[in-house]
Amino acid sequence: MSVAAARKVLVVAGLGKGTGTGAAAARLFSKAGYSVALVARGVETVNKLAEELNSAGGEAAPFAVETYSPKDINSVWNSIRAKYQAPNYNIHAAIFNVGPGTWKPFLDITPEEVRTSLENNVEAGFAFAREAILTFKGNEISEPKGARGTLIFTGATASLRGNTTTSAFAAAKFGVRALSQSLAKEFGKQNIHVAHAIIDGGILTERLAAMRPEAVDNPDVRLNPDSIAESYLYLVNQDRSSWTWELDLRPAHEKW
Amino acid sequence: MSVAAARKVLVVAGLGKGTGTGAAAARLFSKAGYSVALVARGVETVNKLAEELNSAGGEAAPFAVETYSPKDINSVWNSIRAKYQAPNYNIHAAIFNVGPGTWKPFLDITPEEVRTSLENNVEAGFAFAREAILTFKGNEISEPKGARGTLIFTGATASLRGNTTTSAFAAAKFGVRALSQSLAKEFGKQNIHVAHAIIDGGILTERLAAMRPEAVDNPDVRLNPDSIAESYLYLVNQDRSSWTWELDLRPAHEKW
Amino acid sequence: MSVAAARKVLVVAGLGKGTGTGAAAARLFSKAGYSVALVARGVETVNKLAEELNSAGGEAAPFAVETYSPKDINSVWNSIRAKYQAPNYNIHAAIFNVGPGTWKPFLDITPEEVRTSLENNVEAGFAFAREAILTFKGNEISEPKGARGTLIFTGATASLRGNTTTSAFAAAKFGVRALSQSLAKEFGKQNIHVAHAIIDGGILTERLAAMRPEAVDNPDVRLNPDSIAESYLYLVNQDRSSWTWELDLRPAHEKW
Amino acid sequence: MSVAAARKVLVVAGLGKGTGTGAAAARLFSKAGYSVALVARGVETVNKLAEELNSAGGEAAPFAVETYSPKDINSVWNSIRAKYQAPNYNIHAAIFNVGPGTWKPFLDITPEEVRTSLENNVEAGFAFAREAILTFKGNEISEPKGARGTLIFTGATASLRGNTTTSAFAAAKFGVRALSQSLAKEFGKQNIHVAHAIIDGGILTERLAAMRPEAVDNPDVRLNPDSIAESYLYLVNQDRSSWTWELDLRPAHEKW
Repeated sequence: MSVAAARKVLVVAGLGKGTGTGAAAARLFSKAGYSVALVARGVETVNKLAEELNSAGGEAAPFAVETYSPKDINSVWNSIRAKYQAPNYNIHAAIFNVGPGTWKPFLDITPEEVRTSLENNVEAGFAFAREAILTFKGNEISEPKGARGTLIFTGATASLRGNTTTSAFAAAKFGVRALSQSLAKEFGKQNIHVAHAIIDGGILTERLAAMRPEAVDNPDVRLNPDSIAESYLYLVNQDRSSWTWELDLRPAHEKW
Repeated sequence: MSVAAARKVLVVAGLGKGTGTGAAAARLFSKAGYSVALVARGVETVNKLAEELNSAGGEAAPFAVETYSPKDINSVWNSIRAKYQAPNYNIHAAIFNVGPGTWKPFLDITPEEVRTSLENNVEAGFAFAREAILTFKGNEISEPKGARGTLIFTGATASLRGNTTTSAFAAAKFGVRALSQSLAKEFGKQNIHVAHAIIDGGILTERLAAMRPEAVDNPDVRLNPDSIAESYLYLVNQDRSSWTWELDLRPAHEKW
Repeated sequence: MSVAAARKVLVVAGLGKGTGTGAAAARLFSKAGYSVALVARGVETVNKLAEELNSAGGEAAPFAVETYSPKDINSVWNSIRAKYQAPNYNIHAAIFNVGPGTWKPFLDITPEEVRTSLENNVEAGFAFAREAILTFKGNEISEPKGARGTLIFTGATASLRGNTTTSAFAAAKFGVRALSQSLAKEFGKQNIHVAHAIIDGGILTERLAAMRPEAVDNPDVRLNPDSIAESYLYLVNQDRSSWTWELDLRPAHEKW
Repeated sequence: MSVAAARKVLVVAGLGKGTGTGAAAARLFSKAGYSVALVARGVETVNKLAEELNSAGGEAAPFAVETYSPKDINSVWNSIRAKYQAPNYNIHAAIFNVGPGTWKPFLDITPEEVRTSLENNVEAGFAFAREAILTFKGNEISEPKGARGTLIFTGATASLRGNTTTSAFAAAKFGVRALSQSLAKEFGKQNIHVAHAIIDGGILTERLAAMRPEAVDNPDVRLNPDSIAESYLYLVNQDRSSWTWELDLRPAHEKW
């Protein structure tokens, strides 16, 4: 069985309540033929989403983690690699969609919240990237597109600008952006594609629906996670001659 | 005949010798069902490319211009609008790929070269954008994607950084980038999508093939114009909830 | 007479009505011992300011120009160089403070306004920089600071961001910023210092006083041109080991 | 005794071996009349530098810390505040010059190194900023300049760009930059000035002298810490109408 015949696998981490970017990417890549490894902290979320994808004719498996510590991330990737082996599988795409935010005046932020923000965004990002890249390095170059694998980070407005209530969040998101740029430069030469998407607006999740009900039916004012997912699939399908490191995504009517 | 039944039209300006980004976009959009209006300074280029696209089953028409002056740009758009009328046609996408460069030490650049660089990049960009936006404003919102039209600018490394031999080119490309950002902010609210693509590397054109023959067969080191074109088609197909203003594109092995 | 004994000369272009950044720089450099060549389009402005500086014990001379065309700029620099000759004078600093703005919705901007904006910002900036740099190249390195000369450009918020009503202004200011960066990189190696100051807020000029009277006595909400001038003098006095290309300046309470 | 009569105090953290930016700032502010609180991990460094400054007629005191943990930083600031009390003292400036770097290929970096880099740059920066800002908030506005206090962060090339061997360092320095921007926006309104200096080149320290001996006597190719210190003093002396958040500093001949 040739590499071409191997089923491509997406590993996606960070699924929230199953209504946001990570889950939408899982659904879209599943429809596109990928087997999907679902990584999140909620057992229920990963199980439910795996079931949903499998019922829809896809192939997905739940990989709940207790934390996004380097140890737990390493461990879950070991499980994922054990399950998706050559020649049947080819772990070819990874999405790091973890990124809990904190919005508080600076003086209300505790050292523990700074630590947690850095752990769950930056340290988890480093650990996830390490596993993805080590895995991709073991892949052949996938022709005709020319990547051994693609690693995508979900960024935010706070990846580009610190603001009055975002010090802890922006410090973490800036850090992830730096990481993604360093990786893109170092591993591009090894045909590993690393990209960073700036989500510059509110995403239509359950939470947003509760907070801004008027936005639900108005695609001009909030991002559809399915559309973000489409950008991720586009990034994965770019050929090696023209890779994007960074793009921004925002609703048509967003003020920026 | 409903809007949905109207054939979408792409207007693309800047075709070089028919081997670069503009021509590749014309080919790809043609294959995707667009009628294509080809704008360039070379009569021969537009005629030859129109013939090629028509022979391949597409629908393309040549619109040679003598210059990229606001007057000539206004005039060619009048011709384009006259040809592609509702209800049969819907001018829905426009690509401004004009962008002649100058690489010279600062003191070797004449005021005339500065002027020419600004004229052909910035002033032409303003004029082209004006026509595209006025045209798009007359369109209905195209469902389900939600744009009245999409305008794409081709940028370069020099759009982001001035360097020792790029003062005149970078001044012009920075200017176009500013324009594109202003437009994206002003007309997003009217459901007109404006995007800017940073091409951060050498593009496989006839010229590059002559200068760097070793790059021709190595997609890791130069951009394939067809791949750039794919990014443009992707941008045009983004839905209104998640529009990209800017993305970068570079070969996998590019040093940056 | 050694170079050290030569009187340093500042050339400053762009004086508005004599109440803004250019005039404040002229005053401050004059107090600091510079002879000042005053370049502006208004004969009255330059004459009045020259008189003021001379009355205050300084040495200043008016150099009115009809336009900021490359030809007029070349011509005025020839006059300036004729007046300030070695060994008595050393033209050591130049400030390009020209930068007329346009704030209009995109569709209200005419091609002529785009042209004018580019001419007076970008083309004038190129021409002014050319003369300054050619002049500085003829200077010895001035010890102990180590510059042959310093060229400063006044930037604005629109140097960094295009916005809904700033397309023509931002396109021009982005262009000047690109120019300044290219020059800093090319001529730093020749010990010519080029800097760019982002003025990110309203400057206390006669115009602002008329429009926002409540801002006049509140230094928290508008820039004092004297303070901007101090930053320019600081830049000129930086030693060659630690040159700034770009800094931003804004009032303490500015929202940004 | 009025506020004006209070002696101004600088708190500077991060002194390396006493040959870099932090020590140079301590010396310059001491000469400018500041009492200086010296914070560093090496008891010997702070003692020796305090002695040096006191022998030279200044007033300095050592505040060694074991670590830059939030707890130790809080504790050392408590000591500093206990020593420098109103009406005799006014803690008016703080420099966070801590910023240990790591240069390694990504896969050679351990999770512990990522953690350490974030702790000593970002978390320490948050903790130091918290103490500085809480202290400044207790100050009167100091006329005529109009600040309650100024907090400066030392940045680096890696604050702006991730590169092949800087992932852990850049992630941390990006984070500090985000913090400084958030603080500048939030506390400018309270007349607390926060600035960030990008040191874009090698600094003439003992370490650089050992590695690049040819650079020692060539101010065109490395930064003099005294010159960086001058920029810090300039920032502290800016008046409230024209505060700089960010400036870059690099040697005249630096390639960038």
